Amino acid sequence: MGTDAVVYHDPYDVSVEEVEDPELEGPNDALVEVTTTAICGSDLHMYEGRAGADPGMVFGHEFMGTVREVGEGVETLSPGDRVVLPFNVSCGHCRNCEAGYTGFCTNVESDSPGAAYGYVNMGPYRGGQAESVRVPYADFNALELPEGDEHEDDFILLADVFPTGWHGTELADLQPGESIAVYGAGPVGTMAAYSAKLRGASEIYVVDRVESRLEMVEEHCDAVPINFEEDDPAERIKERHGGGVDRGVDAVGYQAIEGDREGDSPYDAARENPSIVLNHLVDTVRATGKIGVVGVYVSADPNAPEQVEQQGKLDLAFGKLFEKGLRFGTGQCDVKRYNRRLRDMIVDGVAEPSFLVSHRVSLEDAPEMYERFDEREEGVTKVLLTP
Amino acid sequence: MGTDAVVYHDPYDVSVEEVEDPELEGPNDALVEVTTTAICGSDLHMYEGRAGADPGMVFGHEFMGTVREVGEGVETLSPGDRVVLPFNVSCGHCRNCEAGYTGFCTNVESDSPGAAYGYVNMGPYRGGQAESVRVPYADFNALELPEGDEHEDDFILLADVFPTGWHGTELADLQPGESIAVYGAGPVGTMAAYSAKLRGASEIYVVDRVESRLEMVEEHCDAVPINFEEDDPAERIKERHGGGVDRGVDAVGYQAIEGDREGDSPYDAARENPSIVLNHLVDTVRATGKIGVVGVYVSADPNAPEQVEQQGKLDLAFGKLFEKGLRFGTGQCDVKRYNRRLRDMIVDGVAEPSFLVSHRVSLEDAPEMYERFDEREEGVTKVLLTP
Amino acid sequence: MGTDAVVYHDPYDVSVEEVEDPELEGPNDALVEVTTTAICGSDLHMYEGRAGADPGMVFGHEFMGTVREVGEGVETLSPGDRVVLPFNVSCGHCRNCEAGYTGFCTNVESDSPGAAYGYVNMGPYRGGQAESVRVPYADFNALELPEGDEHEDDFILLADVFPTGWHGTELADLQPGESIAVYGAGPVGTMAAYSAKLRGASEIYVVDRVESRLEMVEEHCDAVPINFEEDDPAERIKERHGGGVDRGVDAVGYQAIEGDREGDSPYDAARENPSIVLNHLVDTVRATGKIGVVGVYVSADPNAPEQVEQQGKLDLAFGKLFEKGLRFGTGQCDVKRYNRRLRDMIVDGVAEPSFLVSHRVSLEDAPEMYERFDEREEGVTKVLLTP
Amino acid sequence: MGTDAVVYHDPYDVSVEEVEDPELEGPNDALVEVTTTAICGSDLHMYEGRAGADPGMVFGHEFMGTVREVGEGVETLSPGDRVVLPFNVSCGHCRNCEAGYTGFCTNVESDSPGAAYGYVNMGPYRGGQAESVRVPYADFNALELPEGDEHEDDFILLADVFPTGWHGTELADLQPGESIAVYGAGPVGTMAAYSAKLRGASEIYVVDRVESRLEMVEEHCDAVPINFEEDDPAERIKERHGGGVDRGVDAVGYQAIEGDREGDSPYDAARENPSIVLNHLVDTVRATGKIGVVGVYVSADPNAPEQVEQQGKLDLAFGKLFEKGLRFGTGQCDVKRYNRRLRDMIVDGVAEPSFLVSHRVSLEDAPEMYERFDEREEGVTKVLLTP
Repeated sequence: MGTDAVVYHDPYDVSVEEVEDPELEGPNDALVEVTTTAICGSDLHMYEGRAGADPGMVFGHEFMGTVREVGEGVETLSPGDRVVLPFNVSCGHCRNCEAGYTGFCTNVESDSPGAAYGYVNMGPYRGGQAESVRVPYADFNALELPEGDEHEDDFILLADVFPTGWHGTELADLQPGESIAVYGAGPVGTMAAYSAKLRGASEIYVVDRVESRLEMVEEHCDAVPINFEEDDPAERIKERHGGGVDRGVDAVGYQAIEGDREGDSPYDAARENPSIVLNHLVDTVRATGKIGVVGVYVSADPNAPEQVEQQGKLDLAFGKLFEKGLRFGTGQCDVKRYNRRLRDMIVDGVAEPSFLVSHRVSLEDAPEMYERFDEREEGVTKVLLTP
Repeated sequence: MGTDAVVYHDPYDVSVEEVEDPELEGPNDALVEVTTTAICGSDLHMYEGRAGADPGMVFGHEFMGTVREVGEGVETLSPGDRVVLPFNVSCGHCRNCEAGYTGFCTNVESDSPGAAYGYVNMGPYRGGQAESVRVPYADFNALELPEGDEHEDDFILLADVFPTGWHGTELADLQPGESIAVYGAGPVGTMAAYSAKLRGASEIYVVDRVESRLEMVEEHCDAVPINFEEDDPAERIKERHGGGVDRGVDAVGYQAIEGDREGDSPYDAARENPSIVLNHLVDTVRATGKIGVVGVYVSADPNAPEQVEQQGKLDLAFGKLFEKGLRFGTGQCDVKRYNRRLRDMIVDGVAEPSFLVSHRVSLEDAPEMYERFDEREEGVTKVLLTP
Repeated sequence: MGTDAVVYHDPYDVSVEEVEDPELEGPNDALVEVTTTAICGSDLHMYEGRAGADPGMVFGHEFMGTVREVGEGVETLSPGDRVVLPFNVSCGHCRNCEAGYTGFCTNVESDSPGAAYGYVNMGPYRGGQAESVRVPYADFNALELPEGDEHEDDFILLADVFPTGWHGTELADLQPGESIAVYGAGPVGTMAAYSAKLRGASEIYVVDRVESRLEMVEEHCDAVPINFEEDDPAERIKERHGGGVDRGVDAVGYQAIEGDREGDSPYDAARENPSIVLNHLVDTVRATGKIGVVGVYVSADPNAPEQVEQQGKLDLAFGKLFEKGLRFGTGQCDVKRYNRRLRDMIVDGVAEPSFLVSHRVSLEDAPEMYERFDEREEGVTKVLLTP
Repeated sequence: MGTDAVVYHDPYDVSVEEVEDPELEGPNDALVEVTTTAICGSDLHMYEGRAGADPGMVFGHEFMGTVREVGEGVETLSPGDRVVLPFNVSCGHCRNCEAGYTGFCTNVESDSPGAAYGYVNMGPYRGGQAESVRVPYADFNALELPEGDEHEDDFILLADVFPTGWHGTELADLQPGESIAVYGAGPVGTMAAYSAKLRGASEIYVVDRVESRLEMVEEHCDAVPINFEEDDPAERIKERHGGGVDRGVDAVGYQAIEGDREGDSPYDAARENPSIVLNHLVDTVRATGKIGVVGVYVSADPNAPEQVEQQGKLDLAFGKLFEKGLRFGTGQCDVKRYNRRLRDMIVDGVAEPSFLVSHRVSLEDAPEMYERFDEREEGVTKVLLTP
């Protein structure tokens, strides 16, 4: 018996095929039958062949489902329980996990702290775009959900993008009544803006270039949309909000592009400038403010145009940053830090992040959706797969 | 009648001469007769002519003394009170002051948030290397000291370097029992290491190249000295403390130089590399750690060799920083945030930072001491002046 | 020339009459023409003669208006500016003010830390139920408002009840997604529940006995109403929310009464039990939780029935509290800690607390409204007065 | 084969005898060969028969030793590893453990949150005054120590009293440079005072009646000793430290006694007043301060003289507490929150708490030491047992 899964072959080539059924490998493992899994923007890095994924690898770090079997050491889960998993795999008893830094677990089988399902250089854990998945440290990793099938489209977002967006606002230390600027209106940026709204931000600005995304954050997050192709976003925000905003979030990362005020250049790599968003944030946020960076930066990017960026170094406006006394928090989200409370907000009707979801299709349609998502087809914001 | 003061004329040319006696300019002002003032490393920027100081300017932002006269709005100070002043001038009622960010006061007469006595671009407040000084917002700014003349050499350090060193450890969020690396063993770095000791750090590393400084931190701060001319400091610290330390402090700033492992190049500008300390810290601090930056970075440095640095931009290893989930705090110290508690530690015998002081001379000797301090004469660490 | 004001004569006897016009008494004072003032539940303590107010005293600690004149030391206010004042008078430069504890200022002319306008034992500051008022430390105390007359009914609540309710949730350390129980649905309890909603609480319980109040919190705060005359409130909340809630707020204070499950006893002093709410909270909040106490407790209450309570001592279930590892925060609100951000939430349309206001009448009608408010007339929740 | 252990028979009757050797009961268990165990003051509650211990029970919640065997799910421990255990047993994956509240674990087999080894009503975990012990959730609970036998007398204190004393200062939110009063100079109070010193407190007061204890805190913790038989301790502290101290710790608990200023009454139950220490603290700590309660309070104390105290209720001066805006933190220590950092302080020579240890004897001598400790024999402060 096997399990169907999204398997990577070559750049731009994935297929759904049967792989070996997962098995319990230790007493603290559980097996989960997946009811929903999702494609993440970071899966595209591997899909495009830029992350060095090996052929045969199973993708997917966002999934939820039903417990099928548990190891003899597992005590809080039983077959039939409905659970969602953080994208991070973490042990629960290393120094980092104990301090809540589950994205930087030092016991997972990874070269550097932190691991994830189905991701290159993040340990050997097979991905969750599959019918069933092995979950290590199951008592620690699985978050229990109410029985039934309610809120399925909301709960799946607890695996990554909702907590990751929230993390941006937490790294920025957003307090109720403060103002915030979020750069990037992809899934993470949208969830950051939505988190800001849930936390009582008084004014929320979101910067992007795609009108449909800007409309979504305006409608669902009460955000002021700023199109960086039209104006310098920092100048525009400072004009509207004298002296800059209290907090900032970078939900873009190193593949940032410069705005084209003439409006005649396409969206392409020639406009890439990996420090543009960080430097805009240094400009946008007022003195004494804080910036949360959840957009991904990489330590080596061999295809980057300039030598400095190839080494993962950026020409950051550190003098200005220092003069303004700014503070920065960075890094991937420690999902467990937030997912219980975000779950409770969903259950009690306070949060409903599923407005982000644009498609739900069968797992078999994954190859097509990878292609459309990778082409940045307008309207393809978040794709859910049903195994 | 006038008051003697250290007056700037031209690069490398200061003299002590009589200037107009200060007067109360508003009801919240006080006049202070200075009993001790100090020369700060940052005064040398102006002394060397690199900061655009105007001839005739009075230097000095570290001073203490006795209240001579108070405006009618001042209610907690009386003539005869012994006080020390923070180097920052702050109003006490703007949003930043209320939040404790007194280094970023928005009501002082300065182009950007924050002001200081006797400093270029930091407002019109005349310097404290003088017999007497006007103190604005006196109730808010003056910290009262016990009567008498005890602890004079300790209390003067409350004006700047002791709180600034402490600020480095606070920005790094140092907790008792944690490990920390401090880059730079000048007055601020030494005070950062001393603060780390007072806060119960379990292991303290200090990186510098001057042996007498390294000996001082070893003796007074229980620190492990690391000479960066001999070894890569990050490698050496990681060897001793597997995986890196919990916290880091940059007490060097943009005039950092690269180590010369061959040992044959002089200490000069040719070795300057303004990002070397920050990148060493990214390397030295373990994943999830935090870094406090109190060494000064400037937004424009017209004399820097490379174009990027001229604009105050640095090639920071942001990819590695992000992958490690590091956090940064930066900016000049909000002295009032700490000076009451540090004063109490001195009064009660818990802290005695005056080991840092190498010289106490008459105010008249200021020109000579400026010259010797600027030449980095070994053993000239902290110079006090008695008016 | 004089100013009309609400003047106390005897228990249950106040009138509106002309008193001396206020004058600047020092360089940091301002005079404010009142546009709106409000009656607070705590004014009733004095009105009923239980607080030892002296005849001739002017009441009122909630007011807002327009600056008429400023002392020569005032620098951020000008005649014509629209401002609201915190009920606390505070200096801005004592140790407590600097730490944000403006409700415990040590420089105000009061026997113990902290002062207020128009309140017994809270300093000599004349009350604000008047046409004009003197504001000391004006730069520090006045919060600027947008020009015009928008949001007048919201902004007046920034003087006391909105920040005080918020303070309850802050003392309880409420985090987004957590559950909370608020005891008391008077103005402060209602504002605490509203604050909990604004902060993203997942579930909010409010305990009271007055149906119209419970309906208001249900409608405006998305709260679950609990009538303590019908059930043991702690039991009922624990039933609905297994194991108790994360946080609790006491918005009742020492004049708490026991529920009457038989339903045949009137609301009267015979049912007073000053520890009933605290002990209910110890029962209601789950282990490791935290409780904010903003309902007033007094150190001496000569009219209390039992000797223990006469001394301001309560029979608190401390053993149970300890076994559950509970934490408590208490005390009057430091309004300045919150009022800027709450103002911004009002300006930007995120908060609209004026649903609390039941009446706006002329200042002349104050005596009648005192009487009706004191009789706990149903529907008289918050009374605004226009001078 | 069996293991020798301290077994309880009847009040005042324990013996060392062979019990069944512990075995692994699940895959996450480990067996530890005890090298040092200690008698705790709280063991005396059971010894005196006041806690309802069943005959045959093995005592001891403070122990350290060497791993003998691990379950197949244990991944970070190997036979031969030297470890110390927190007195709390905790799972590592419930909501409380994840938040760091390991003293309130909800998965342990206990009626209420939290468990401990060898303690009544704290779960079925056999005590550690034995040659060998079973440790559940071993990866999560065991703290690794350096190989060898150095610091044995320091490390054993990591099981309970050093972290518990530290916890008192943490609940009180002690900051460097602040002042603190600790009530009680038993092992926990002494460790609280020592923690205050390590954290940079500027002034430390310790209140007790036993001169040898007061001398110890004076010598090792730089504390000012206050004998409450001679003076009202709150008055004396306020005299010396105007307005009271910033922070307070209750290291006494419900068996507090009133001071006898006449000096002619013995130390006995007739002087018990379970609220005296809490009310002294309300008096001692200045407005806005915070109090950490680590002395034990119980929810039912059937032998207490007054009815109120029998129900675990205390007549607390809540009115005064509220007027001063005081905050309280309570509850047993979450040892894991601190033990890594305290271990590192010991390893690096920053902390050396073993000055507290008065005796080290063979396990066989346990019955005699229980007797002498129970009689409060002067000089018997902390007894270690070697199996």
